[in-house]
Amino acid sequence: MAQVRNKQVVLRKYVDGFPKESDMNIVESTTTLKLPEGSSDVLLKNLYLSCDPYMRILMTNDNITGFGAYTLGSPLIGNGVAQVLESGDQDYKKGDLVWGTTKWEEYSLVPSSQIRSKIEHADIPLSYYTGILGMPGMTAYVGFFELGSPKKGENVFVSAASGAVGQLVGQFAKLTGCYVVGSAGSKEKVDLLKNKLGFDEAFNYKEEPDLNATLKRCFPEGIDIYFENVGGKTLDAVLLNMRVHGRIPVCGMVSQYNLTQPEGVTNLANLIFKRVRMEGFIVGDFYHLYPKYLEFVLPHITEGKVVYVEDIAEGLENGPAAMVGLFSGRNVGKQVLLVAHE
Amino acid sequence: MAQVRNKQVVLRKYVDGFPKESDMNIVESTTTLKLPEGSSDVLLKNLYLSCDPYMRILMTNDNITGFGAYTLGSPLIGNGVAQVLESGDQDYKKGDLVWGTTKWEEYSLVPSSQIRSKIEHADIPLSYYTGILGMPGMTAYVGFFELGSPKKGENVFVSAASGAVGQLVGQFAKLTGCYVVGSAGSKEKVDLLKNKLGFDEAFNYKEEPDLNATLKRCFPEGIDIYFENVGGKTLDAVLLNMRVHGRIPVCGMVSQYNLTQPEGVTNLANLIFKRVRMEGFIVGDFYHLYPKYLEFVLPHITEGKVVYVEDIAEGLENGPAAMVGLFSGRNVGKQVLLVAHE
Repeated sequence: MAQVRNKQVVLRKYVDGFPKESDMNIVESTTTLKLPEGSSDVLLKNLYLSCDPYMRILMTNDNITGFGAYTLGSPLIGNGVAQVLESGDQDYKKGDLVWGTTKWEEYSLVPSSQIRSKIEHADIPLSYYTGILGMPGMTAYVGFFELGSPKKGENVFVSAASGAVGQLVGQFAKLTGCYVVGSAGSKEKVDLLKNKLGFDEAFNYKEEPDLNATLKRCFPEGIDIYFENVGGKTLDAVLLNMRVHGRIPVCGMVSQYNLTQPEGVTNLANLIFKRVRMEGFIVGDFYHLYPKYLEFVLPHITEGKVVYVEDIAEGLENGPAAMVGLFSGRNVGKQVLLVAHE
Repeated sequence: MAQVRNKQVVLRKYVDGFPKESDMNIVESTTTLKLPEGSSDVLLKNLYLSCDPYMRILMTNDNITGFGAYTLGSPLIGNGVAQVLESGDQDYKKGDLVWGTTKWEEYSLVPSSQIRSKIEHADIPLSYYTGILGMPGMTAYVGFFELGSPKKGENVFVSAASGAVGQLVGQFAKLTGCYVVGSAGSKEKVDLLKNKLGFDEAFNYKEEPDLNATLKRCFPEGIDIYFENVGGKTLDAVLLNMRVHGRIPVCGMVSQYNLTQPEGVTNLANLIFKRVRMEGFIVGDFYHLYPKYLEFVLPHITEGKVVYVEDIAEGLENGPAAMVGLFSGRNVGKQVLLVAHE
């Protein structure tokens, strides 16, 4: 049987501190494009891979998170868009486009249960299924609407606001009639927030010496919903500016994942003073809402009322740089890795 | 009209750090025991006053909490049990026993809206209306049942467990069929928790060099509900030991109120990993549930299934020491101040 090349991005060593490109390796293995006899798995040709901050957590081997860790020498695992080459599960057939959990390689054999959904709307960019129509989209939707319980006229603050999730939270907040401010790490991103993504206000946190004062200026009446993506100093300043009965959906704390000793948050007593609900969530607990989300978001996309900014790197060999770039804020918008065209 | 002495405990200066007795003064003013012409207020003879940690917050003048602050030279304001001497509100009459917000003095003229409830169950110690039947009781009830959403068999951890609120949370948890562990600051308190209050396990946090290890030992399967009274290091260790979908009702952070720079909490990312809901609350938002609470708790009290440990100081002149003692953990059980017998 013909062997084909199967380029992979594998974890070379467990990461300590900020990830480096050298923590990963590009490996050229080979594979046969044939489902093993009797297998109920699905053989995928990977088209787009999603670079997500949570993946950093799986690059550490202490498992205090309960999420486990990547296996050294094996390809990274993450979300992606793929085409079915062969299927042992009657729900999928050759040629189907799907998205779900796959591996950082050209071809992957995965259990069919790892497929989240078939892709039915081919008029929309396929890469969107790593973003607005995939895990980050659902994350924004669930965190903002289910945990945030927004009401028209409320004040919303989003950190990492131009990222895969944040840019959607801001747009969903505007659709709900909220006032929304975002923080990001460069002038380019701040411009994007204000001029393309419809945020009412935005600032570059790196240029604000006193985040508490900045938030007081942006929110003289306080914050009703803080969509938490970063943790640390930003959270601490936010806690001083929450409004009574505010909500903090905790989606991520990306500023902390690379620190051996995370920053201490000192203003938690404000949770009491302001009766604030702070709640961590994982999108995996909410995928039963995916059809409802598509119903909500697809018309907004086709009507141009919600846009999505992507930063697409090309080729598996650029995967490590794309992954590492997430933590220095190099990407502008959702970081995608193009593996192959359809 | 006859003037009578009205001894008061007044705030002498705003507090910085731990409160000291000298931050307060005993003042002998005088008053006439007569309602002003046309007043709709109520003239009270104070019997028991409640010493509560939240009062420390009102002794600081920065008002970052939004709760305001005590007025210098004026008596402290707090919960208490009193007898009505004269009433300008037809809902109350001379001789009624009531509890609500009063002042740290012998006689107080207060708006009738500050009365929380008439006391109808005089077979129960009057002082209980500063504790189990008053604000702390409602706090335990609301925090544990409304925010904690306990289920039979769940694992509950309570800090400041022998205090006014904690001792009730532990007993309510046992009534619900939970496994409950408490922490406190002395051997005497730990004995009380284990031998009188029915906790399954208890420890003296001052003798545990590694709180994370202690909690792992007490909760090998993790904590479902942490009833937060103290904040700081304890919270940080708890965050490492929460179970998936755990809840943290945040009642108080008494370990932090006296610190100029609160301790940093570093393990908040566990809110995400374990999908934990952490929610601050103030009992004042929940008093509509008071009748329901009485219905729940009164039978337990009369049947001896719930007990209540009080530490009663006698005389207004011992008020400052009682107040200060809350923050060194001197009191064993609910700290009450007896002002006068009925």
